[in-house]
Amino acid sequence: MTRPLARLPKGLNDYIGTGLSLHDHLIAKLSEVYRRYGFEKLVTPSVEYADALGSYLSDHDSASTPFLFKDDDAQPLILRYDLTAPLARYVAQNFAGLSLPFRRFQTGSVFRNDKVEPGRFREFTQFDADTVGSASVAADAEFCMLISDSLSSLGLKTGDYIVRLNNRKIINGLLDLIGAGAGAIGTARYLGVIRSMDKVGRLGLEGVKHLLGAGRMDKSGDFAEGAGLNANQIDRILEFLSFSVNVPVMERAQTCKALEKIVIGSATGEEGVRELMQIDAILAAANFGSDRVRVDPSVARGLSYYTGPVFEAELTFEDPEAAGKPQSFGSVGGGGRYDDLVESFLGFGVPATGVSLGVSRLAAALELRNLLSKKIERGPIVVLVLDRDMLTGYQAMVSELRNAGVPAEMYLGDKDMRSQIKYADKRRSPYVVIEGSREREKGVVAIKDLSLGKQISGEIGSYEEWLKSPAQISVQRSDLVKEIMDLLDPNAPKMSAAQSHML
Amino acid sequence: MTRPLARLPKGLNDYIGTGLSLHDHLIAKLSEVYRRYGFEKLVTPSVEYADALGSYLSDHDSASTPFLFKDDDAQPLILRYDLTAPLARYVAQNFAGLSLPFRRFQTGSVFRNDKVEPGRFREFTQFDADTVGSASVAADAEFCMLISDSLSSLGLKTGDYIVRLNNRKIINGLLDLIGAGAGAIGTARYLGVIRSMDKVGRLGLEGVKHLLGAGRMDKSGDFAEGAGLNANQIDRILEFLSFSVNVPVMERAQTCKALEKIVIGSATGEEGVRELMQIDAILAAANFGSDRVRVDPSVARGLSYYTGPVFEAELTFEDPEAAGKPQSFGSVGGGGRYDDLVESFLGFGVPATGVSLGVSRLAAALELRNLLSKKIERGPIVVLVLDRDMLTGYQAMVSELRNAGVPAEMYLGDKDMRSQIKYADKRRSPYVVIEGSREREKGVVAIKDLSLGKQISGEIGSYEEWLKSPAQISVQRSDLVKEIMDLLDPNAPKMSAAQSHML
Repeated sequence: MTRPLARLPKGLNDYIGTGLSLHDHLIAKLSEVYRRYGFEKLVTPSVEYADALGSYLSDHDSASTPFLFKDDDAQPLILRYDLTAPLARYVAQNFAGLSLPFRRFQTGSVFRNDKVEPGRFREFTQFDADTVGSASVAADAEFCMLISDSLSSLGLKTGDYIVRLNNRKIINGLLDLIGAGAGAIGTARYLGVIRSMDKVGRLGLEGVKHLLGAGRMDKSGDFAEGAGLNANQIDRILEFLSFSVNVPVMERAQTCKALEKIVIGSATGEEGVRELMQIDAILAAANFGSDRVRVDPSVARGLSYYTGPVFEAELTFEDPEAAGKPQSFGSVGGGGRYDDLVESFLGFGVPATGVSLGVSRLAAALELRNLLSKKIERGPIVVLVLDRDMLTGYQAMVSELRNAGVPAEMYLGDKDMRSQIKYADKRRSPYVVIEGSREREKGVVAIKDLSLGKQISGEIGSYEEWLKSPAQISVQRSDLVKEIMDLLDPNAPKMSAAQSHML
Repeated sequence: MTRPLARLPKGLNDYIGTGLSLHDHLIAKLSEVYRRYGFEKLVTPSVEYADALGSYLSDHDSASTPFLFKDDDAQPLILRYDLTAPLARYVAQNFAGLSLPFRRFQTGSVFRNDKVEPGRFREFTQFDADTVGSASVAADAEFCMLISDSLSSLGLKTGDYIVRLNNRKIINGLLDLIGAGAGAIGTARYLGVIRSMDKVGRLGLEGVKHLLGAGRMDKSGDFAEGAGLNANQIDRILEFLSFSVNVPVMERAQTCKALEKIVIGSATGEEGVRELMQIDAILAAANFGSDRVRVDPSVARGLSYYTGPVFEAELTFEDPEAAGKPQSFGSVGGGGRYDDLVESFLGFGVPATGVSLGVSRLAAALELRNLLSKKIERGPIVVLVLDRDMLTGYQAMVSELRNAGVPAEMYLGDKDMRSQIKYADKRRSPYVVIEGSREREKGVVAIKDLSLGKQISGEIGSYEEWLKSPAQISVQRSDLVKEIMDLLDPNAPKMSAAQSHML
């Protein structure tokens, strides 16, 4: 019999330690903000009937395919590829009993059976919120605030991020005016124009000019086909986009006025501007200035299903890991208004708007910005075992610490003292507790500071060497809990040993 | 084109509201206790290579089958059916770099493509902890304490639960002595004996007697085949089991002494008793009495892979939902020592011990015991929209509340006041904030207590009726945040409106 090879499936990951702490910290912080905004958590299964998730995925990304399989009744099943399609299924299934507007947030793994590339995984975490059943632009305004407050809650400062806001109606109004709307040039070319406009931040006006026209060859020699617009059409679009590259940034109301002039004559475009003006007023009433949420005509969002306001959260500090020249960290999420949420199920649309944040991207950004508190990373206190027949004494120490709320463990392996300290160090333990026969006779225990003693811990091979090492203190056995708590948090209110014993 | 039907796959569930809050509360509490015990969280993917998870499942439950499918390379994939098999894969894959003992906890969904029955789902949450690489019985003792402290942390009192402890070595010793060991009667019959012994709590000594002998017919007329032991063998086993039905409960040390006499002459059995005595001493040093962890010879655990101490957590209060006569709520989890964890991958065993708790069973128990705090269930403050052209004013109220940390939202639908109050009620909102033209003129807002006014809210159809209703107070607009915070938590330290504005 051959042995199986212990290995992770392609494109999947295990998570443990600091990376996982950061991920959990981020989920907790975002959940807190989303709840404060009145969104309620929903959990749906990872597995759905394939037909009930519909075909959003093809719109997401043509290179993406879902994982498909069957249950015992041979019903086609699918691992969810996003959190929006399950929301549509949930809303349609429970529509009669649902109290609208339905405001839910949801986080969890989504799966794509995609080509595996560096930084591209087959399971990743999304964090979504949607408001279903509200046609009010106040719902869109709320998401711009929600994203801003979410990023602030993670420790990012105003200036580290910007929420860029636009309206598909304005883009559509402009394109209608210049004869480049979906009706005039077909949906595929129209989407090509939309996606080209979305790239102005990365390629600049000159790059977009080529993409709108004959096409563009990048540095690697790859040729991207152009949308084939004429010179006049291209000029009008570039004029429109020029408001997105303005430095210093214009106030939202000022940008709206400029855009109004460009789309005048298109009812759709004018309505789009009016909506942005309403959003601006709501944002202003809530004290969100243009330094946090700005109007940016280049925000188009690639998906075809958006129908109104669209927004994108961008981190503006530099990412040294970015390919090629230094550039801003870029998008960590976004969203917008879409009205076809439950249409495929129920035959009628329901107005909806929502946002999705990419948790891994955000985690990478927080690491880059060093915004992870040291406290998250701390491991348990490890009580070393020097005398195997004294287990009950060591266990009593561990129990006292745990009862006082301090994470602690007794070393449960069978290695020597040096290995035990190495083990504790690897567990990110801040302190180890040591009681040998000499300490026991005197009624004391030694506490060793692993962060201070890190550089020398490798040299300690025996109990005798230990006695001579620095970075340790000797305390009365009865004061162990008090002393450890003082060391862990010198500013915390004090508790007597007797009290901690009674907990 | 026919419309797809919006429906959940068979045996799967959506979670929202109180049920989800309870689930999350439970996961958070357990995580806190497990961390305090020095266990580190691990997350592995839901999807694994089928061959790397091995065939534990057949041992789990013969009626259980996994969900199988393939990736784009036609590699067989599987949805994990428990959290132990992925742990084995993780440990084997990372063995060289792992610092032993490896102490991890893990929680998440597991999937079974099983027959769907009431209360039996195809996706459910497990909560596991394991210590890998420790042969010390102190590791087993620790899990008995961990389970006890976990159940206490959920609000269950001593007496509401008991951790029952035994050792497979004692059972094996007894069976060897009476010629009913695996070697003498074959593994299948041996497992039949083990599983029969496990049932004494439910069937009593008389029921087990039949299962060990010729078989047993239950009330529905179904016949369970017996293990076919002879009268002498059966008597010896019943004598052994009698210590499990003793009332009042014996002290652990006392039970150990009695068991020692029964297995005398079997080296394995005697070693098993010695191990329980060591565990007893460690538990005593940590102040865990027999009222929380008792020795119970009937605990066998059905799985074939246990090799040493085994334990089971039982809730002892009555479950009115139980089929037939009232009986104790029963098992919510358990575990034990097993040594073959990575053997199929690496060719050698690694000592390991662990525990698994069933989150849904625990949640059901907490609901039955009314141990869910009311606070978990509270929804956001809803600011009603009476004048659509005053959105910015309502938004300012919402923002002030959110900035003070109070979950709040502006009503985003297009319904009348009565529907808005119904909406807030359905969201479990404690208070709604109301500002009509009359309030605005006076510079006040009304705060309506939905819990007090619940019985009458259905009768309020207009703003005029509203003015006359009880269960509301009128406060200065500038005092809104302060007043709401006072209402939500009368004992919290006070904060001025100016301070809350600056947050």
